[in-house]
Formats: sequence, structure tokens, C-alpha cells
Amino acid sequence: MYQVKSVDKLIGELNKLPGIGEKTAERLSFFILKNSRENVERLADSLREVKEKVRFCSVCGNITEDDPCRICKDETRDRATICVVEHPQDLFLLERVRQYRGLYHVLGGAISPLKGVGPEDVNIGSLLKRVKQGKVTEIILATDPNTEGEATAIYISKLISPHKVKVTRLAYGLPVGGDLEFADEVTLGEALKGRRDISS
Amino acid sequence: MYQVKSVDKLIGELNKLPGIGEKTAERLSFFILKNSRENVERLADSLREVKEKVRFCSVCGNITEDDPCRICKDETRDRATICVVEHPQDLFLLERVRQYRGLYHVLGGAISPLKGVGPEDVNIGSLLKRVKQGKVTEIILATDPNTEGEATAIYISKLISPHKVKVTRLAYGLPVGGDLEFADEVTLGEALKGRRDISS
Repeated sequence: MYQVKSVDKLIGELNKLPGIGEKTAERLSFFILKNSRENVERLADSLREVKEKVRFCSVCGNITEDDPCRICKDETRDRATICVVEHPQDLFLLERVRQYRGLYHVLGGAISPLKGVGPEDVNIGSLLKRVKQGKVTEIILATDPNTEGEATAIYISKLISPHKVKVTRLAYGLPVGGDLEFADEVTLGEALKGRRDISS
Repeated sequence: MYQVKSVDKLIGELNKLPGIGEKTAERLSFFILKNSRENVERLADSLREVKEKVRFCSVCGNITEDDPCRICKDETRDRATICVVEHPQDLFLLERVRQYRGLYHVLGGAISPLKGVGPEDVNIGSLLKRVKQGKVTEIILATDPNTEGEATAIYISKLISPHKVKVTRLAYGLPVGGDLEFADEVTLGEALKGRRDISS
């Protein structure tokens, strides 16, 4: 490496981040070396701060600085609908659509026997508790549209079925703005199955 | 953004790094949120440490924790030859070739009138001082093989010409228009071997 201990250490630490290879870690380190001390302090501080301040909402499992989180506390939202997502990122993505006004539940992952993630490793228990309180009328399952997300959705829907709550799943279909040509067969099959009447 | 203050702040800080766009900054932030506190502390500490400990060698301008640097202190190296590079990265790249046994001089950049970088903004004065001490017999100019690096090489060779020192330039085995940083070691070795006299 660079035989300057603290530089090599920084390169090593940056190299541990996802998508940051050794070359990128080196480039970032030299950028940091050139950067002002204040800027680097600010970055180091914000790394620490995020670990100190951010916790998971005790109600929905979303990341937050205050517990419960902003969305769970928001009295203007539809408290009868819960949208279930795998990760906090998914929640924020849905929020950007500005269409959904209900509450959320963040699982923190999907059930995956292959990866050794069982139902007890994701926040399903707390979801069931929310359902049992009796105020929820619809659960929207917005887990990822892949094998694990699908398996998680089926598992949750079966678990909730005795509770007389409507359980829905995000629609499968063609991505808007894409080409039919690039759609895979499974997606196309789902789009056909889920076709909607537009004649009226 | 994510409306979690410290998370948004971290995304903003990471976004300032070169080659880290908003999407990557978000991905890194969520990785950091999931990562253990110890790992994140270690990253934050190494950021601080690098700014605290790393300084420039008072002789050659290389990055170092001790002054003078490891190479300048190394009595086994050929003290009659100085290889002039733009950045510390370039020095380490040349070291990896394991062919050059002389000393270095790190300019800290190249002369670029377009970017407002004049001869006084790079470490040329200290190079001249080293030449004037009379122990140097050859200066190898290993600035980048682009317009600015070439201009810097010519400027330095003219400045040194009264001092009866052989001035050589890395051979154009390097791809023209590129950056030294991206050269492979074999090409770099060839370029070292084929260096040409430009002192006349």
C-alpha cells in the first residue's frame, strides 16, 4: 500500500464499504487528504451522529431520531392502512410517490431460508400486534417482487388471514416508460393476468 | 430526502466526495446505519487520524507521518537522482514498479494557466533548492503525459538547464492524454527505461 500508516488504514476502512473497491478507496483517501480539516471533521462527525441518534421506530420499525417516528405520529394519515416494506429505503421511495397516505411497517428484510433468515428475524411479530389492535382494515404487502419478497408476502398474508383484514399486494406488470421488447416473460405473464378494463 | 436529519446530513456529506452520487451516498448511508457502531467509529476515527497525522515531507513534498519521509531518510537510495511527480499517488505507483531507487520530488500539481495554477503554486522552488545543493546529477520528469504535465516538465527543464544537471522525461510509452494514475506497471516500467534527454 502507501506505507503511510494512517493513509493505509483509511483506505482499508473505505474499502469495506459496499461498491468501494481499492482504487476508489485510494482516490477517496487522497481527496480527503487534500480536503480541508473542517470538511473531513464534518464527515467524521456525521458518521458518528448517525450511529448515535438514529434508532428504529418502536411502532413501525422505520429509522428515526424520535420515537415513534414522524409518520406514526402524524394524525392526518390514514391509520387503518399499513403498507409493509422490507427496508426503510422502500418506505422513502413510496413516500416520494406522494400517493399513499396510510402508515407503514418496516420488516428490516425478507424471509430467506437460503440466507438463514427466518420469520423471527424480521419484524413480523410487531406487525401482527398492530393488526390485533383491531384498527387496521388493509395491509398492503410491498415487499420486493422477487422470490424472497414473494415468500415473505405469502407468509404474512397467511398469518393475517384469521384477522378479517384485507391483504393486498403491489401489482405486477410492465414498468411505465419501458419497452415491451425488454420485458421478461414472467413479468409479461403477470401483466397479462392483471390486465385491466379501459373500455369504459 | 429522508426527513431524518442526521441521515440526510450524512448523505449530503458523502455526496460531496468525488464519484459518489446521491444514489451511492444513500446506499452507503444505509449500509452505515446497519453496520456496527465499532466499525463506523473506526471509519470516523481513521478520517480524523489521517488529517491529524499526515503532513508533507519538508524535503520532497510527499505525504508522510514523520518528517522527513521514509524515502528521503533511506540512505540506501541513490541520492543523485530525483524523480519529479505531480502527486503522492504517482510516487507510490512508481515505487510499485520496483525499478527506481533514487529520490522523489512531489510538486503537488502541475502548472496550468487555465486553472490559475502558476509555477509558484507547485513545489518547484524547493526542487531548485535541492538541485542547487549540487549533489543531484539527474532529474527525471515524471509529470502526467498531458498538456499540463508536459508544460510543467518543459518549465522545470528550462529552470534547471543552467545547473549542469541531466534532465530526462519519462518515455512516451505512456498513453498520451491520460493520467499517470491509470498507467499499468509494465507500461510505467518501459517508460522509465526509455526516458529521454530534454536538457539541451
